[in-house]
Amino acid sequence: MEKLYELLDQAYSEMVEVRRYLHQHPELSFQEVKTPKYIAEYHERLGHEVRTGVGGGGVVATLRGGKPGKTVALRADFDALPIQEETDVPFKSVVDGVMHACGHDSHTATLLVLAKVLNSMKDEIEGNVVFIHQHAEEMLPGGAIAMIEDGCLEGVDVIFGQHIWSTGPVGTIEYRPGPVMAAADFFHVKIQGRGGHGAQPHKTKDSVVIGAQLVGNLQQIVSRRVDPLDSAVLSIGSFEAKNAPNVIADTAKLSGTVRTFKETTRAEVEQEIERIIKGTCLAGDVEYEFEYIKGYPATVNPKEEMDFVAKLAETVPGVTAVNECEPQMGGEDFAYYLQHVKGAFFFTGAQNPELNAVYPHHHPKFNIDEKGMLIAAKTLGLATLTYLAENK
Amino acid sequence: MEKLYELLDQAYSEMVEVRRYLHQHPELSFQEVKTPKYIAEYHERLGHEVRTGVGGGGVVATLRGGKPGKTVALRADFDALPIQEETDVPFKSVVDGVMHACGHDSHTATLLVLAKVLNSMKDEIEGNVVFIHQHAEEMLPGGAIAMIEDGCLEGVDVIFGQHIWSTGPVGTIEYRPGPVMAAADFFHVKIQGRGGHGAQPHKTKDSVVIGAQLVGNLQQIVSRRVDPLDSAVLSIGSFEAKNAPNVIADTAKLSGTVRTFKETTRAEVEQEIERIIKGTCLAGDVEYEFEYIKGYPATVNPKEEMDFVAKLAETVPGVTAVNECEPQMGGEDFAYYLQHVKGAFFFTGAQNPELNAVYPHHHPKFNIDEKGMLIAAKTLGLATLTYLAENK
Amino acid sequence: MEKLYELLDQAYSEMVEVRRYLHQHPELSFQEVKTPKYIAEYHERLGHEVRTGVGGGGVVATLRGGKPGKTVALRADFDALPIQEETDVPFKSVVDGVMHACGHDSHTATLLVLAKVLNSMKDEIEGNVVFIHQHAEEMLPGGAIAMIEDGCLEGVDVIFGQHIWSTGPVGTIEYRPGPVMAAADFFHVKIQGRGGHGAQPHKTKDSVVIGAQLVGNLQQIVSRRVDPLDSAVLSIGSFEAKNAPNVIADTAKLSGTVRTFKETTRAEVEQEIERIIKGTCLAGDVEYEFEYIKGYPATVNPKEEMDFVAKLAETVPGVTAVNECEPQMGGEDFAYYLQHVKGAFFFTGAQNPELNAVYPHHHPKFNIDEKGMLIAAKTLGLATLTYLAENK
Amino acid sequence: MEKLYELLDQAYSEMVEVRRYLHQHPELSFQEVKTPKYIAEYHERLGHEVRTGVGGGGVVATLRGGKPGKTVALRADFDALPIQEETDVPFKSVVDGVMHACGHDSHTATLLVLAKVLNSMKDEIEGNVVFIHQHAEEMLPGGAIAMIEDGCLEGVDVIFGQHIWSTGPVGTIEYRPGPVMAAADFFHVKIQGRGGHGAQPHKTKDSVVIGAQLVGNLQQIVSRRVDPLDSAVLSIGSFEAKNAPNVIADTAKLSGTVRTFKETTRAEVEQEIERIIKGTCLAGDVEYEFEYIKGYPATVNPKEEMDFVAKLAETVPGVTAVNECEPQMGGEDFAYYLQHVKGAFFFTGAQNPELNAVYPHHHPKFNIDEKGMLIAAKTLGLATLTYLAENK
Repeated sequence: MEKLYELLDQAYSEMVEVRRYLHQHPELSFQEVKTPKYIAEYHERLGHEVRTGVGGGGVVATLRGGKPGKTVALRADFDALPIQEETDVPFKSVVDGVMHACGHDSHTATLLVLAKVLNSMKDEIEGNVVFIHQHAEEMLPGGAIAMIEDGCLEGVDVIFGQHIWSTGPVGTIEYRPGPVMAAADFFHVKIQGRGGHGAQPHKTKDSVVIGAQLVGNLQQIVSRRVDPLDSAVLSIGSFEAKNAPNVIADTAKLSGTVRTFKETTRAEVEQEIERIIKGTCLAGDVEYEFEYIKGYPATVNPKEEMDFVAKLAETVPGVTAVNECEPQMGGEDFAYYLQHVKGAFFFTGAQNPELNAVYPHHHPKFNIDEKGMLIAAKTLGLATLTYLAENK
Repeated sequence: MEKLYELLDQAYSEMVEVRRYLHQHPELSFQEVKTPKYIAEYHERLGHEVRTGVGGGGVVATLRGGKPGKTVALRADFDALPIQEETDVPFKSVVDGVMHACGHDSHTATLLVLAKVLNSMKDEIEGNVVFIHQHAEEMLPGGAIAMIEDGCLEGVDVIFGQHIWSTGPVGTIEYRPGPVMAAADFFHVKIQGRGGHGAQPHKTKDSVVIGAQLVGNLQQIVSRRVDPLDSAVLSIGSFEAKNAPNVIADTAKLSGTVRTFKETTRAEVEQEIERIIKGTCLAGDVEYEFEYIKGYPATVNPKEEMDFVAKLAETVPGVTAVNECEPQMGGEDFAYYLQHVKGAFFFTGAQNPELNAVYPHHHPKFNIDEKGMLIAAKTLGLATLTYLAENK
Repeated sequence: MEKLYELLDQAYSEMVEVRRYLHQHPELSFQEVKTPKYIAEYHERLGHEVRTGVGGGGVVATLRGGKPGKTVALRADFDALPIQEETDVPFKSVVDGVMHACGHDSHTATLLVLAKVLNSMKDEIEGNVVFIHQHAEEMLPGGAIAMIEDGCLEGVDVIFGQHIWSTGPVGTIEYRPGPVMAAADFFHVKIQGRGGHGAQPHKTKDSVVIGAQLVGNLQQIVSRRVDPLDSAVLSIGSFEAKNAPNVIADTAKLSGTVRTFKETTRAEVEQEIERIIKGTCLAGDVEYEFEYIKGYPATVNPKEEMDFVAKLAETVPGVTAVNECEPQMGGEDFAYYLQHVKGAFFFTGAQNPELNAVYPHHHPKFNIDEKGMLIAAKTLGLATLTYLAENK
Repeated sequence: MEKLYELLDQAYSEMVEVRRYLHQHPELSFQEVKTPKYIAEYHERLGHEVRTGVGGGGVVATLRGGKPGKTVALRADFDALPIQEETDVPFKSVVDGVMHACGHDSHTATLLVLAKVLNSMKDEIEGNVVFIHQHAEEMLPGGAIAMIEDGCLEGVDVIFGQHIWSTGPVGTIEYRPGPVMAAADFFHVKIQGRGGHGAQPHKTKDSVVIGAQLVGNLQQIVSRRVDPLDSAVLSIGSFEAKNAPNVIADTAKLSGTVRTFKETTRAEVEQEIERIIKGTCLAGDVEYEFEYIKGYPATVNPKEEMDFVAKLAETVPGVTAVNECEPQMGGEDFAYYLQHVKGAFFFTGAQNPELNAVYPHHHPKFNIDEKGMLIAAKTLGLATLTYLAENK
């Protein structure tokens, strides 16, 4: 492994260069053109087998090791966000209103340079490494589903992935066996009452009153119907019924989000929302429209593979702490890969207050300490080589 | 009319005597035996046509005037209440746990002695007077329905009735054209959830939470669904779900009352209660039982007859004020007579703080100033004779 | 009175002309300039004493009768509304976005021509007539308060007023002793919670949930706290908390209206709203801002004067029905005059489906059958002359 | 360890005998007299240092090993429950209405016989073993607090305890690092409104409506205010406001339970309950009484010690599975020991459907497969000796 670390240390300046190039040229989800071309050409230069347009816009490159063995997939996403960058970095986005504000540029740079390093060690590798460069992680339905359907996991035994983490110090790695990122769903309800004059409620069906009642009733899902040992969130972000004070509202529109970690809980919450809407609207004698939009499912790390990676991570140079973390309530379509093969997904700290002010992901001033990329590359490389060595 | 007043003044002591006799020997609703016998014999002595057992336990006596004309009915109820009398009057109830605590003894005495007086004037009377002595006003379904079905209103052109009023000063008469007493209905709801351990709400269907939600939702009937210019009350008197603190309730039982003045509102409120229960229980995924028990309908005075009586009342000796009153929320089965013939129902003040402490009707210490009876008799007599004289 | 009717019939074409002129040149509340000038000049031509700028923009003209007596005031309002007229009448508004959509043009025409006719009969008039031409009825705080403060009711014994009514047939008059138009108040509540991510409710104070709870809690004011025999309405017209579905709202804004007929009820409702907001926000650990804006008080007709006018109205040529009506829930600043002197306010039908399609007041296609003006003038004239004749 | 297992196997019949004796002679919490005497005498016969009356009714015995070292405490509780036994076992309780229905008899038998066996091995023991026989686990405030205050943990380095588990198969052990049993608190709320007639809500303060509102509002604690990644339960078991349907309730009484795993969450929930009661009652203009009764805190196993015991348990003869379990929502005052010293608490399966029908703890037919005691004794003995050996 010393060789792996050494080669990565030597390639670090290229990694930074690649990341900065990508940062300057961000592309929105499902609109990526130049980025996958750049990625494909990089792998082609290394002599890897390359498939482009996988599942629409993804790139899959395969490195065949010198010795027979298992196949490890490594995944990095490469899309950017519709955010106007507000940093002062010299490699600031040149595309108006588009920014790599979640670090996918760093994921790609990490994976490309790791691919180059592994390629240079390929004679010793006992098996194969598949590099899954995924488009469109930031927008439903995400790129993962289509890439999987298009065969990106064929022959893959295990998959590893990581997310750079701007709010974790450089040197720390956070992980969690079991659910690590929630299923993040959305819903919209339109209550169709009958409007009228505020002085004559009996001639109306007051959608504000019914909507308010619905908000109250929905609290019972978390407070009464979900197992208290399980986690679920139901938040109604938007309640919209803007009218003159003396006009009774015709319609009220509610929108909210649901976060769960188990598919059974997720299904139950959706079903209970609809039941409660139905009953509340029956009681109120009003009509409704209900739309439930499934986001990504929960990302659930199998315990064995996650513990395997976490234990290895402790040995990586530069890693100062490997902590089990609380689950994150945000969604990630890495979830789909783990529904098909075993694997692990973890968070690599890249916070450095001395270098950059700390902003959360999706912030216009988001930035990272690029040293986090090196740690990520070493950890993924170590996990890959160790897995192949131990699972012949 | 001077003659009528004079004769009634002379007969007042008998009126008091009759009232006190009846007060001493009260009988419960639908169990009256001696009282109707007493009444029937009184009328028989006067030579009136008498029918007993009318509609079960009522007595109807007819006085035929010397001249042809219309027929006026006068109604008095004669049942008592299951209350232990707590007064110190010498004519206190001799029946344990039964008391004339609503003044029906006075109604009967008033009507009997008025009958006697009118009888002595019969040659001059231009038409007929029907004396309706009704049993069972205090207990659903009341005696009126059955007496009407048994023909007590046959041939009747108009009906007058009054209620002695312990909280109105002697000398005052209160009346109201239109709705004067409310329809008083009752309902019971049983919410059938699924009980369980307080620490495991997800395995239960929490009937306390659903019941509480129902109480809240039912508020909308009055606040949103009934015309604000109409009156309605919905009160939930009882909420019963007694358990250990850490046991989730299997069932919650709610009972309440509904008061309305219009049949359409009454029907709408009943329907909305059921709709809201249905929707709330659907939302809560629980079963329910619902029972709605109709009490007496609203007593609604036709404007013409009521104004006729009110105007006359102003001329009665001893009457100091005739006031239009707010509707009463309590029920009275005089309502049924007014669904069949025109007529009027009013309240005769009998409060006299110097004579008796003032207690409300149905109180164990209830008592009246008997002078109120004399005023009632004069008003009813005047209305009867004037009506017959004016409507040949 | 025959003479009054005859003169009014003769002057009807002028009344129509005046109304149409005013209709073409509407002016907004508190911005009236030409209209009061027009009115003042009309009265000056008649030789009446005229005060302009009364309470800001009102005009008061006085006709002194040939004989001494009481003083009757007649009031007409003259402001228009910020509505773009959509009718096809030849006398359509020439002012963009301003329209006499409530009939105040007709009120003014009625009063001016009635003044002319009474002026021609002045030798026989036993007292005085004060013509109160009021500005700004459509906009709080209304013109009435300031005109009263500026002395327009000085020496006045009784005041009469009427409102043309586009939804009552020509020939009908509607009236009501007691409360005839409601107090119409408004309120705004801002709930200041603490926003945040929908997945982390525990770090927020969810203003949508608290706002929804508030809507539910406010239902109790009408359902539990106001006397069921009294009328009150509380409607929340607007609930505004528009956010992304996964963002918990920082603030929720609610606006509503309150309608009451009694000042005690009005004060109680305001107080209970604040109590409930305060308690709900305390429970929810959020801050609030509450603003309660009083509109006009209820217009309450004294029984004696109202009955006096109603009885007279039955004798007016062209009147086919005089009906007691339900109270209106809308507001009218005639209310203030009745807080100072006795009087009556009624509605004059002006609906004629054969002539005009029927649209409600404040509608861009609002129009009336002008014959209603003639009936209004005769009724007001009759009431004035009769009152003066009977109350020397 | 072979020796330990062998000696325990040989002493198993005595263990059964002791358990059956204790089962026959159960004593209620805080009323234990014979049981501690029996325990003390047993230890005295072994020559252990014995303190009785510790913290009121507890017994603490100390075995000093032949070699110096650390001190391990083992804890067993010995009180019974106010339940009438309904089993048919020959050693059925002879005390009317009192029963060892939670298995504390087995805990005591396990510990006594283990003490005897360890005593026979004492020369080899490198440190000391303290046997904490605790009274009153079943009744607040529990015996643990007082025993700790009375010094039972002085000099103790680590404490181990277990609970026999009638619903886990013999051979299984369940454990959980972190919170394993919840804090179980209770609360009572009395809402003091003002009763009255159901037809006159405006003269009352309706405690049923306010109570119902409170039930709804309290749902927000779990749904909005507790971290969704944490667990909390708030259940209202009892809602009591029994009245006639037409009487508005004077008071409503609510009782409920709260379960939490973290002290911060527990404190927050208590505080939020009071805040919500306060605000709801302010909104409703009613008074309240609130009582919050703290039960035992959560039992939280330190990860290191728990994993240590769990790993050892896998090696115990007869153990077929050692499973990490979900936290239990019930309370246990072992919690207090773990607030002072490190340690571990686990569940030993004792279900055997072939031998006994399976009933939950606290059931009148509760019984166990006594083989569970042997496994418990071996596991505790192994943990004790290994700990002392490894921590010199």
